[in-house]
Amino acid sequence: MTVKITVLKEQDEGGERRVALIPQVVERLSSLGVSFAMENGAGVASSYPDETYKDVTLSTDRKALLSDADIVLAVQPPTIETVQAMKPGAILVSFIYGRNHPDLVKALRDQKVTCFAMELVPRISRAQAMDALSSQATLAGYYAVLLGSVHMTKILPMMTTAVGSLRAAQVLVMGLGVAGLQALATAKRLGAVTEGYDVRPETREEAQSLGAKFVDTGVDATGKGGYARELTDEEKQTVRKAISDHIARADLIVTTAAVPGKKAPRLIDAEQIKAMKPGSVIIDLGAEGGGNCEGTQAGQIVQVGPTTIVGPINVPSMLALQASELYSKNIMHLLQQILTKDGQIQLDFTDEVISGTALTHDGYITNEGIRTAVDPN
Amino acid sequence: MTVKITVLKEQDEGGERRVALIPQVVERLSSLGVSFAMENGAGVASSYPDETYKDVTLSTDRKALLSDADIVLAVQPPTIETVQAMKPGAILVSFIYGRNHPDLVKALRDQKVTCFAMELVPRISRAQAMDALSSQATLAGYYAVLLGSVHMTKILPMMTTAVGSLRAAQVLVMGLGVAGLQALATAKRLGAVTEGYDVRPETREEAQSLGAKFVDTGVDATGKGGYARELTDEEKQTVRKAISDHIARADLIVTTAAVPGKKAPRLIDAEQIKAMKPGSVIIDLGAEGGGNCEGTQAGQIVQVGPTTIVGPINVPSMLALQASELYSKNIMHLLQQILTKDGQIQLDFTDEVISGTALTHDGYITNEGIRTAVDPN
Repeated sequence: MTVKITVLKEQDEGGERRVALIPQVVERLSSLGVSFAMENGAGVASSYPDETYKDVTLSTDRKALLSDADIVLAVQPPTIETVQAMKPGAILVSFIYGRNHPDLVKALRDQKVTCFAMELVPRISRAQAMDALSSQATLAGYYAVLLGSVHMTKILPMMTTAVGSLRAAQVLVMGLGVAGLQALATAKRLGAVTEGYDVRPETREEAQSLGAKFVDTGVDATGKGGYARELTDEEKQTVRKAISDHIARADLIVTTAAVPGKKAPRLIDAEQIKAMKPGSVIIDLGAEGGGNCEGTQAGQIVQVGPTTIVGPINVPSMLALQASELYSKNIMHLLQQILTKDGQIQLDFTDEVISGTALTHDGYITNEGIRTAVDPN
Repeated sequence: MTVKITVLKEQDEGGERRVALIPQVVERLSSLGVSFAMENGAGVASSYPDETYKDVTLSTDRKALLSDADIVLAVQPPTIETVQAMKPGAILVSFIYGRNHPDLVKALRDQKVTCFAMELVPRISRAQAMDALSSQATLAGYYAVLLGSVHMTKILPMMTTAVGSLRAAQVLVMGLGVAGLQALATAKRLGAVTEGYDVRPETREEAQSLGAKFVDTGVDATGKGGYARELTDEEKQTVRKAISDHIARADLIVTTAAVPGKKAPRLIDAEQIKAMKPGSVIIDLGAEGGGNCEGTQAGQIVQVGPTTIVGPINVPSMLALQASELYSKNIMHLLQQILTKDGQIQLDFTDEVISGTALTHDGYITNEGIRTAVDPN
C-alpha cells in the first residue's frame, strides 16, 4: 500500500507563515513511491503557491485529508481536533512542546498517534540534519540583527562621508548558541564592532572566530545538550558585575538565552537598562519564554528609558520561505529514517534518533520526562 | 554683538526625529564666540537629550527664542507662523523645497528673512561638506536594504547549514545616485548578489566597484547636476525591455530615482510586478515623490500580487542620531562661510555657494527658478 503523506495549512493564531513541506522535498522523496496530499494554500504564506507543488493532491477538505493520511506533517502544535481526526496508528511530525500542551499530548496518546516532536530530535551528530531547533535558530539570529538595525537611530558600519566619518556601532550578543553566533556573524558582516557573551566558556573560540570579542565573566555554567545550566545567585552577581559596562556601551544588544523547559533567564535588569545609551536597542529573542530583559513584552516594541526593547515572537516565521525550506528538509531526513527504500513505514525504536524524537506511540507517552510532567499518575 | 544661533524642536506632523544642531557642532563652533539657544527637548527624538548640550541656553518659550535669534536652524520647512516670529534680517537655514511651499517662500520674502535652503547647496566639490541631500541620501540607501531584509521571506547571504545551503538573494538597485550606491554596498556587505541600473552609463564603474553587475540598457540619459534627465517614450520602452528579466529575477529591489522638481519617474509597472517572484520585496525610496513603482503608497506597506511594496517616507529620520550628526555638520560648514572668525555675520553673495544656496534675502526671492515658479508676476 502506498504511504500517504499529508500537510495541512497552519492554523496558528500567531500567524504562522511556514509550511512543513516544500516542493523540492516532494521531489526528493517521490522516488520512494509515497504519495502526497496538501490542503489548498498551505504554502502560500511562505511564498510557495499551490501551482509550485507538482505531484501533490490538493484538497480543501481538511477532515478527509486527515482521516486518509498515514503521515501528517506540521510546523506548529496542531489542535486537539486535528489529532482526533487522524487515523489511529498514523504518524504526526511537528513541533509539539509537550510540557506546554499537556492536553495535546494526551490526545495524541489516546488517538494512538505516533508523534515525532521535532524539538526532541537528539543533539547528536548523526541527527544534525534533522535538528529543526538549530536550523530555525540560525535564521532567527540573522533576523534579530536586521530587526535591531531598523530600530536603531544609527547605522552599524563605520562610514566615511564628505563631512566626516560615522563610527561603527557596538553590538553585544548575549547567549552564544546557534542563534547568538549567527547574530554575531551578521552584525560583523554589516561592519559593527561585536562582543559576545555566554556562561559556557567553550563558546569563546566560536565568538572569536567570528571576529567578536568574548566577554569573560569567570563563571562556567556548561550544562547538558548544548544548553547552559541555571546560574546560582552568587554566580549571577559575578556575571552582572562583569557585563554591566558592556551593556552600557552597546548600541544594539541581542539576547538569545534559553534553558529547556524553564522560563527564559534574566540577563539584563532595569537598572542596567537605565545606564544604556540614548537610542540603544535590545532584541530579546527570549521574549516568548518570558524575556531575557526586564521590561520585555512578547510581540511588542516598548520604550524603556533610553532603550527600545523589541520582543519578537516566532522569528523564523518571518523568513518563512527559507525557514520552511530548512524545516522541510529536517523532516525529510527524519522521514528517511522512518520509510524503507520501497516506501513502507518501518519504525525502529532501538534507534536513538527514533526513540529520542518519539513523544507518543501506540497509546503511550514514550518520552519519560514529558510523561511524568503531563500525566504524573 | 554676539550672534545668537537658535534651534527649535521640529514640529513636522510626519514625526520628524532629526535635529539641526548636535552637541559636537556646538563645541566646534563655540570658538567663534557665537551663542546658542535651543527649545527644550529638541534633540530627544534623535537620541540627544537636553543634558548633552553644553553651553546652550534651553527655553520652552518658542516665540521668544525666535524673536531673539540671528540665525535659526531647522530640518523640515518651518511653518509660516515660525517665519513670521523671526526678526527681519535674521537668517534661516533649513530644507525648504520652495516649489512645494510657495506660501512659505513668500512669507520668508515678506519677513525679510535671509533663507539658505539646504536642498539648493550647489553640487560642486567645494560644497560637498555642506551637501545635506547627499549625506541624508547615503543613510537612506543603507536603511532601504535593511528595511527590505526584514520584509523578505528569505535571507540575503548564502548560508551553509547542516541540511544544505541556502542561496544568496538577488538584489537589484534602480537609480545609482548616492542612495542607490549605498544600497548596493549594503546589500553586498550582507552577502547578496547585486545588480545596479541607471540611465546614466557613467554609473557603471561605480556599481562595479561595489561588486555589482551593471544592467546595460543602451540608453544614455545623463542630465544636469548629477541627476538624470527625463526619458523619451521610445527610450522608456527600450529600457523596459532590457530591465524586465532582471526585475523578475530579483528577491529585493530598491528604487531611488528622482528628477528634481518633477514627479518621481516610473521604473516598474504593474505588469513587471506580476512577473516577480513570490515573496519578493520592493523598497521604493521614490515614494514621497509619487513612487517609482506602480502601486506604491507613500508611508504604506502594500501587497501587490507576489510582491510586498514598501513606500517609506522620510527615511533619514529613521536614523535620526547619525542623520542629525551629518546634517548638523553640513550646516556647520555653511555657517563657517557665513560667520567671520570673530563670529560676525558676513554674507558674500559673489560666492557661488552662498548665492546658490540662498532662496530669499532682504525682501527678494533670490533663486530665479523658484521666484518664477512661486511668483510669476
